Amino acid sequence: MQRTAGGRPDVTTDAGLPVAPETAERLALSADAPPQPPGGNRVVRAAAAGHWERRGLATAAEQVLMAPGPAPLLLALLAVTGGDLVLTRPTAAWYAPQAELLGRRVHRVAAPAECGGVPDPVALLEAVRRARADGSPGPRVLVLSVADDPTGTVAPPELVHEVCEAAAESDLLIVSDETFRDVLHAPLTVVLSPAESLPGRTVVVTDLAAGALPSGWPAAVARFPADGPVADLRAPVCDALARLGATTATPVAEAAALALTEPGPLRLRRTAANRLHAAVARAAHAALLEAGALCLPPACGFHLYADFTPLRPALAAHRITGPDELARLLPGASPGHRFGDEPRAPRVRIAMPVLYGDSPEQREAALASADPLRVPHVASALAALGRAFTELTDA
Amino acid sequence: MQRTAGGRPDVTTDAGLPVAPETAERLALSADAPPQPPGGNRVVRAAAAGHWERRGLATAAEQVLMAPGPAPLLLALLAVTGGDLVLTRPTAAWYAPQAELLGRRVHRVAAPAECGGVPDPVALLEAVRRARADGSPGPRVLVLSVADDPTGTVAPPELVHEVCEAAAESDLLIVSDETFRDVLHAPLTVVLSPAESLPGRTVVVTDLAAGALPSGWPAAVARFPADGPVADLRAPVCDALARLGATTATPVAEAAALALTEPGPLRLRRTAANRLHAAVARAAHAALLEAGALCLPPACGFHLYADFTPLRPALAAHRITGPDELARLLPGASPGHRFGDEPRAPRVRIAMPVLYGDSPEQREAALASADPLRVPHVASALAALGRAFTELTDA
Repeated sequence: MQRTAGGRPDVTTDAGLPVAPETAERLALSADAPPQPPGGNRVVRAAAAGHWERRGLATAAEQVLMAPGPAPLLLALLAVTGGDLVLTRPTAAWYAPQAELLGRRVHRVAAPAECGGVPDPVALLEAVRRARADGSPGPRVLVLSVADDPTGTVAPPELVHEVCEAAAESDLLIVSDETFRDVLHAPLTVVLSPAESLPGRTVVVTDLAAGALPSGWPAAVARFPADGPVADLRAPVCDALARLGATTATPVAEAAALALTEPGPLRLRRTAANRLHAAVARAAHAALLEAGALCLPPACGFHLYADFTPLRPALAAHRITGPDELARLLPGASPGHRFGDEPRAPRVRIAMPVLYGDSPEQREAALASADPLRVPHVASALAALGRAFTELTDA
Repeated sequence: MQRTAGGRPDVTTDAGLPVAPETAERLALSADAPPQPPGGNRVVRAAAAGHWERRGLATAAEQVLMAPGPAPLLLALLAVTGGDLVLTRPTAAWYAPQAELLGRRVHRVAAPAECGGVPDPVALLEAVRRARADGSPGPRVLVLSVADDPTGTVAPPELVHEVCEAAAESDLLIVSDETFRDVLHAPLTVVLSPAESLPGRTVVVTDLAAGALPSGWPAAVARFPADGPVADLRAPVCDALARLGATTATPVAEAAALALTEPGPLRLRRTAANRLHAAVARAAHAALLEAGALCLPPACGFHLYADFTPLRPALAAHRITGPDELARLLPGASPGHRFGDEPRAPRVRIAMPVLYGDSPEQREAALASADPLRVPHVASALAALGRAFTELTDA
């Protein structure tokens, strides 16, 4: 398990794969590039616009901002909009701290049974109504994650529509985290962006760390609507990024511009990465179910969100009573409370990339294989994960 | 004049010089380096510790944090300490926004007559006393800038001692911005760090954008005391950086580790850069005085802080009544209010690097010259600046 300098388990986004040669080359050629302005220069913003155009979202460079990672984008947006934050339970770990830093409240709404990343629409309406009843400014921004980390699920389009309707009825601005929309396990999976369902109220945020760039190169892009009140937030958000000193490192921004134009070799590499993520997640999911845990079937990304509630008696026999103990004993696992889940619920996020190999060469071999489960070190890491599940839970 | 995407004049730190070949090479070789943890990995923290050791400040890697620029370091520190911020008037533009973002007050204290970057000690005591009289938590953090941007002055050691005594008496934590401590116009200038004068209360912050790295590669390092209550802030500040997603881009951190070890070729380049900054600032200073403006003699950095107050009648005849008009008409100038000065005071910061050349080749030639004022494009840029001064102010 990767750990931060502070010793906390890593809850960041890291596909665990070596950098593409084309991307490394662009970095190496970018030492002399002029500094990026806050929000990104025209080249990188146009590249991001093209990326969204190819996904059915007409976009001009003037609608785009780039930042060194998604967190400063959300922080700047919250600083500009005021009001509290509404999140699904669980969510990616980086959303809540931006509101907390500004002294804003975070309201958590449960996900429906079938997927994570979006709240149950009826529960959302009720939570916002209740939160506003005490007269405070109340909820203002809702983060949705249609292709979700940590749950690895893709919310069905009709549910996304319903949630967007509930958000509009609740007068919420939507931040659509689309970091994982290209990390699909089945290429034909339909991902409906809230920017299609509720265009005037949606800001799309895409962290490039899920595959477009190495996770150590912080870069993210945001897409604002073409017009209306949410479009008018773009300039003050850019100004807030400038005040935060949140400009993207020049060589990283140049590499991001390349990645966002999606040249052929990088598209092929993404296809290979998705094959690897899908195969390993499917196998780990099967092992989880076999051990008796609950877990929604993975459809995107490289994480599983495992619920050991049915195994509580067996876990208790091993003196495991909460998610921290589980996270210590399982490779690649982080406790669910880091994702906003209930503090003692026996749920963990499990990162697949720890199974891809210990060296860059091993990870490159896993990426290159047409059948990743037959790569010996991947097979043995998966077997070890399966043993860890059964050792935890045998009676 | 450089401008941000939002169209605001640039108030950042940019020495305006091409990247050193050794630094570019390190970047190019760093594409495969593993992600940096929040706060920086041991290699870069040890390199920063060595940098401070060579400046007389015994430092262990465990006292160091790295961040993608100085702003997240101050933001994280303020988030952890609570309380308001005390600044000199004027100061670097990036301090105040971090407090404002957190909803904290900023108290401005005038500098003494002889230099900028540190407040008048008596005025500091009085300002803190007054600010606390209303019962609010009040001032908690004081930023000092001994080798100062925007004023280009170096505070004398006895004054630094007095200010540190006043800070201790006022129970303030000191953030010592030492970004410009190596950009000295005379090599033997004595720079007393508040970390020497008041070691237990001082956090040193150094932005590498003043010369160690290109300004578009955001990286800064902070040095905490070895022990005591301020040392104990390091871990929570690192945790706040993690929550902000403020990790340094891997290739930039690798280049920073090289720069902080100060190999011979980079030391020589710094000497050349300082010669250029000193020569151009001295010439621009003379032109300012000749035009009748006020300006403290430059001793460090690459900015002048010009006060056109004595020329108000002449400026009024040209319909120039404030700093924004001045900044529009003078190359490299930004209005003083961006640095916390009074909104209508006719004062501007003037950046020397706009005079070093329009192309990387011209800037490299200015850097390489033993007598930069004889480089034709530098001489003609200085002459144009002098003409701009006199055109503004002729009667």
